Parts: sequence; structure tokens; C-alpha cells
Amino acid sequence: MSYCTATYRIYDPKADFERKAQSIAIGMTVGTWTELPQIKQEEMRRHLGRVERIQVHEPETGSETERYADVSISYPDVNFTRDLPALLITVFGKISMDGKIKLLDLEFSDSFLSAFPGPKFGLDGVRDLLGVKGRPLLMSIFKSVVGYDLNGLKEQFLAQALGGVDLIKDDEILFENPLTPIDQRVRVCREAAEEAERVTGKKLLYATNLTGPTSKLKEQALRAIDAGASALLFSVLPYGFDVLHELSSDPDITVPIAAHPSLAGALYPSPHYGIAASLLLGKLMRIAGADLVLFPSPYGSVVMPREENLAIRRELTAEGLPQRASFPVPSAGIHPGLVPRILDDFGTDVVVNAGGGIHGHPGGASAGGRAFLQAIDAAMNGVSLEQASASLPELKAALDLWGGQR
Amino acid sequence: MSYCTATYRIYDPKADFERKAQSIAIGMTVGTWTELPQIKQEEMRRHLGRVERIQVHEPETGSETERYADVSISYPDVNFTRDLPALLITVFGKISMDGKIKLLDLEFSDSFLSAFPGPKFGLDGVRDLLGVKGRPLLMSIFKSVVGYDLNGLKEQFLAQALGGVDLIKDDEILFENPLTPIDQRVRVCREAAEEAERVTGKKLLYATNLTGPTSKLKEQALRAIDAGASALLFSVLPYGFDVLHELSSDPDITVPIAAHPSLAGALYPSPHYGIAASLLLGKLMRIAGADLVLFPSPYGSVVMPREENLAIRRELTAEGLPQRASFPVPSAGIHPGLVPRILDDFGTDVVVNAGGGIHGHPGGASAGGRAFLQAIDAAMNGVSLEQASASLPELKAALDLWGGQR
Repeated sequence: MSYCTATYRIYDPKADFERKAQSIAIGMTVGTWTELPQIKQEEMRRHLGRVERIQVHEPETGSETERYADVSISYPDVNFTRDLPALLITVFGKISMDGKIKLLDLEFSDSFLSAFPGPKFGLDGVRDLLGVKGRPLLMSIFKSVVGYDLNGLKEQFLAQALGGVDLIKDDEILFENPLTPIDQRVRVCREAAEEAERVTGKKLLYATNLTGPTSKLKEQALRAIDAGASALLFSVLPYGFDVLHELSSDPDITVPIAAHPSLAGALYPSPHYGIAASLLLGKLMRIAGADLVLFPSPYGSVVMPREENLAIRRELTAEGLPQRASFPVPSAGIHPGLVPRILDDFGTDVVVNAGGGIHGHPGGASAGGRAFLQAIDAAMNGVSLEQASASLPELKAALDLWGGQR
Repeated sequence: MSYCTATYRIYDPKADFERKAQSIAIGMTVGTWTELPQIKQEEMRRHLGRVERIQVHEPETGSETERYADVSISYPDVNFTRDLPALLITVFGKISMDGKIKLLDLEFSDSFLSAFPGPKFGLDGVRDLLGVKGRPLLMSIFKSVVGYDLNGLKEQFLAQALGGVDLIKDDEILFENPLTPIDQRVRVCREAAEEAERVTGKKLLYATNLTGPTSKLKEQALRAIDAGASALLFSVLPYGFDVLHELSSDPDITVPIAAHPSLAGALYPSPHYGIAASLLLGKLMRIAGADLVLFPSPYGSVVMPREENLAIRRELTAEGLPQRASFPVPSAGIHPGLVPRILDDFGTDVVVNAGGGIHGHPGGASAGGRAFLQAIDAAMNGVSLEQASASLPELKAALDLWGGQR
């Protein structure tokens, strides 16, 4: 018998959590139990959910904190098929609507996990493609290019590429449009990448945004790959984890997939409802096959608490899962002065991802990229940015504008 | 120029909401505005978002209510493709992660709406299939049938069908399994439906649960339809609205689709985050093509406030949209004594949907169905249930057990 286990945080001022847990374990599996005749119980036992742990947090008298319990329940694999919609429907479908309840974590059986090849490249594979080891990667984000034509797009791409960045990603709000359709967009950006490569001597991945009807996503991905796409950007949540899983496990999709957290804020930030960030943007993204995973950094204006960031990182990279590790990409509000702090928080296996911090550099986007690389180099060598910037005008300009660590 | 408009509730104790709204309207479209040269502004104006309305709710001094604003922003259709993922990514992708913000409503342009045929049958079409006008429909839900074989399933189906229900739906946690694979399940339930029809003289739709990998859903639906399925049950949210849209607009899918709200509780209940129930389970389900939409009733243990229920009903049935109306199916906690209240709240265009209220009837599931039909008949004729039950033993037994209106 193998089981997948879900852990919930359930808020209730008075509930008997033991009873509540039992009612979930029974209600979401065999429906009824004590009413069943003995012989039927024998038959149904292999389908019955099991309460694993209950940890009740009683608020101190007079305190304003709420009473809750963390409850873990195991669901027999035999009850559901080995796909993420079936698992999510089983463990959180109906009970997501049953009062204040948040899904904190899932532990999967080996049998369930065996259906998920996970990231095709993963953290190490992306490093191999770029030939970069031992330092954080640098990604830059297109500024809004809605309404741009191919020339405008190419120009912006080239400016970023010449700064020496490792990856460039589309804006996730750039959809198929007559000015920059995906195959032509990929073609001109590839040309620009090659042009830049001749100058910088560096390889570069361009994650082009995969959009449109669900049933056409594979076709569109193949069109992009045919045109020379070296990576894909995909907003997973509006389509569901299963679509990412199907794309990433498809042998014809031969490039890394970067998962965008679009819509995630509808699901993770409430303490009472939804799905914890570490599960939503960590473990589930990795199992579904994202090679890189973007999530809101704790540094910028779109903020996620630092401990949630670190929990996501842990889920994306921890050993213990058969799936390759995914590259963590904390995003938003990143400027060169933050690089030492990012290294402290994430270590070297992180993608430093910047938009405004590259485009807003007083010397332009290329200087912006160089300032980041200088910051990364200094931080990796234990040199303070202030000290390093004395001989590095791009880094100095960035620190002057945005300051050091905040 | 045509636009789709999103309305958000944004909580902030001090924000300048005018400025915040402008920053969303610009940030989620052209990226920057005031910095653009005049000539570039002319070029980009057609891509620029527009602040439509801002309604600030200032809490009274000393009150504990929070300060918030309802903000409406229009996004030019030219910026996104005519699919729901593109729209959701545009209006809520990134800003869902930007503090306390909830998406309350969307208004669509005629151009956007024209890409969505909506429900193939809708409320009237489902009535036509059943030949039932002018009264609420009655749906019964399989009790958990995880672990059942075909005989057990058929037996339970027949008991429900003989009670005269109009629709029977699978449990949403019944996935493909060796005991009751979809085509065989449909075949035996169809036989049972025909058997019951010979007794009751009534037609019956059976919504079989559509599950599994996204790319195989259509194939599985066709297998079910080939085997004689008369309707499909589909958990929309784990797969995304676009998958429902693609299934419902496919000419080969020739039966109604009932949308299950599985996972919806991760999205709608928080006041601060997520997507309002009326949009999530109302307007979006209708536009994406659900013929029937289940949602938690305000009557049972899985509770949604009555006003949210009525808002869902409004969105599913209101005139003003080109899409057919969807049948509202408030679910959970329904017993015959509640029928007059359901009629008061929803009118006759509602599906009375019961699980325990049918299976738990002292006379069994068939008697349970009859008790509901008796309650519907009495309520439609303005007769009190108490009075009607004097000559109707099934209704009387139900009222004795569960009481009248709560």
C-alpha cells in the first residue's frame, strides 16, 4: 500500500480537530466508515484515508492569535490516477471550500513520483547549456514590448545581450500578435544573440513566452524551437500544472522551460486559504518539470517574506526527490547592490533576475548587465561592492543610483 | 478601440489609490508612460491601460474595518489574444502578487466575447434534453463509490434513478480505475437509466466524471459519449478555464458539461486575495461554456454566504451576455425541507442537488428522490411542506428526519 500525504492548516476557534481530521480522511476517500458492515470495511480498508499527525496550536489566553491545527492525512494511491489534477482534486478539491483551510504541503509516494520525470534540464542542465558553473546566473527581463515591432524588439534584446547576461526572458504579457509573432520574434532575437555572442564570447538563452489555446501550446512551442528558441517561458497556473507536466515530459520539447508565477498571488498569500508558496511555486513546479521557477523576491515592491522564499528554494533544490533540481529565480526589485544579499540567502545556485535594475542603469541596459556581473564577481570573491566599484564605473553608477544592500 | 475592464478591491491603510491605479494601468500594458517621448506616446496610446473608476472606502475613525478602494482598469484588447489565460495573465498575472488585492469582476468587450460560444446547451438546452419546463431540476450525487465494482455502481445508480431524479452525477473523486473505467461505467449506468425510465417514465442525464491528462480529455470524453454518456462532469479549476472552453466549443462534444468547483476554495473565500466567487464560479464558467455550474450552497456545512450565491446565480443567468445561461447548482447540505427556501433564493431555474439528502432518507435513495420531487411539487403549488406531507409518506419521513427550512 502506498499513500500521498497532505498537510493542512485548519483554523477553528473550537473544533475537535481529531474529529475533523477523521471526517476528512473518511469523507474524501470512502465516504462513510462506521456505518459500513464489517465485511464491507475489510473490502474498503485499502481505500480509506489515514490521519497521520495533528498538531493543535492553542492561542494563549487573551492573545489575539487564532486557534489552528496542522493536520496531515494520507490518501491511498489506489484512489487516484497518477496526475496532478487527480491528486489536487482528491486532497483539496472539496475541502478547499470547507472553512478556513490552507494546503501547506504534499508528500508523494515513490509510485506517484515515478510518473513525473520532472525538469528535463534542471539546474545543472541549464548550467551545462550555458557552460557556466560556480556562480549565480544573470537573467534580464524585456521591458514592456507590447506594441513594439521586430526592430524595436531586436534593439532591446541586443542591448541586454551585450551586457553579458546569461538569460533573457520575454515579458509574460507579450502574447501572439501581428507585430512580433513567436517564430519571427525568436528569429530576430536569435540573430541578436549571435551578434552579441561575437562581442561578449558568451552563450545566452532566450526564454520566449508560450501562450494561446491549451491544445495548441505544443505546436507553438515546436514552431518556436524550429525557429531557434533556446528556452520557453510559461505561465503555469492559468493553464494548470498538468499542462506544464505534459510539455516538459514531451521528448519533442528540447529546451528548458522557465515557469512564470502569474496568478500565484490569488493562491498563496492568505494565511487562511489557498496553497502555500513553497508547495505551489516550489515542489509542484519542480515535479511538473519547470527547469527554472520565478517567484516574487523578498527585496522589491512585489514582496514575499524571506522565509517563504527560502522554503521555495528548499523545495526546488533539496535532495530526496528523484526529479532534478529547478533553478530558483527570485524576481522583482533586484539591483546590483542586492547581489551579496541574494548570495547570502540563496547561495550560488540562483538566477539573479532584473528588469528595471538593468534597463534603468544610467549607462543603459548593456552597462546595467555589466554592473550586475561585476557585483556577482565581487561578491563571489568576497570583495565588498563599494571596494570593487572603485575601479568599475558601471557598478559604481548602479550603487550611486540604487544604493547597496537594503 | 475596444477594452476589457477589470475591477479590483485593493486594501491599503495609506495608499494614494489614484497613483496606484495609474501604475497598474501603465505597468500592466505599456510599462512606462511619462518617460516616453511625445511621438512614442502617440504610437503607444492604443496599447495603454485606462483607469475607469476609483471608489475609496475610508473606515470611520476608530473603526476596525480596513481601508480599501474598488478600482476599475480597462485593458486594450489589442494587447492580448482572445483566450482566458491571456486575459487573466494581463489583468491579474503579476499584480495578484502585489499586496492585498482581489479580482472582483471582469467586463468583456464584444470582440473578446465573440471568441466564446459559451454553453452548448445551457439552461434551456438542458431542460429541452429532459423535457422538463417550469420547475427546478433534481440532481443526485453518487455517494462515494471509490472501490466499488460495476455491479455496486449500477445498483446505487438504479436506486437513485428510480426516485425520479433528473440528473445523476459521479463523485468528482472517482477517477479512471480498473473497477469502473469510464466507458464501462457509462454503459452500466445507461442500462440502469433505461431500466428506471421504463418504471418512472422520466428521462435522466448522467454526468460522468472526466479526468486524466489534459491532452487526453477530449479522447476520454468521446469514449464516454460513444458508450452513451448523456453529460460530463468536469473539475475546471485544476485544468484551467481554457480547457473547459476548448471542450465545450468542440463540435464533437455533444453532451452538456457540468462544472465542478473543485479547488475553488483556494481562490474565492479570502476578502484580501484571489478571485470573487461570482466571477470565478459565475461569469467565467459561463463564458468558458459550462452548461451547469455547481457551487457551495449557503445551506449546508460547506457554506458560502447567501449574497455570494445570488451573485453567482446572477452571473450565470443574467441577460446581457451573448452566451446562453448556465444552470445554477447550489450544492451541499440540501434536504427536502430546504426546497421552498431554494425556490425563494433562486426561482425555478435552479438544480436542487442532493447527496446525503437522498441517500440518507430512511426509506432509501429512491424514497429520497421522491421526497424531493414531492417537496418541489408542493412548493411550486404554494402548498406548505407540512401540509403536503400529510398525504406523502416520503416527504413526511424527510421532514421528520431533517426538519423544515433552517
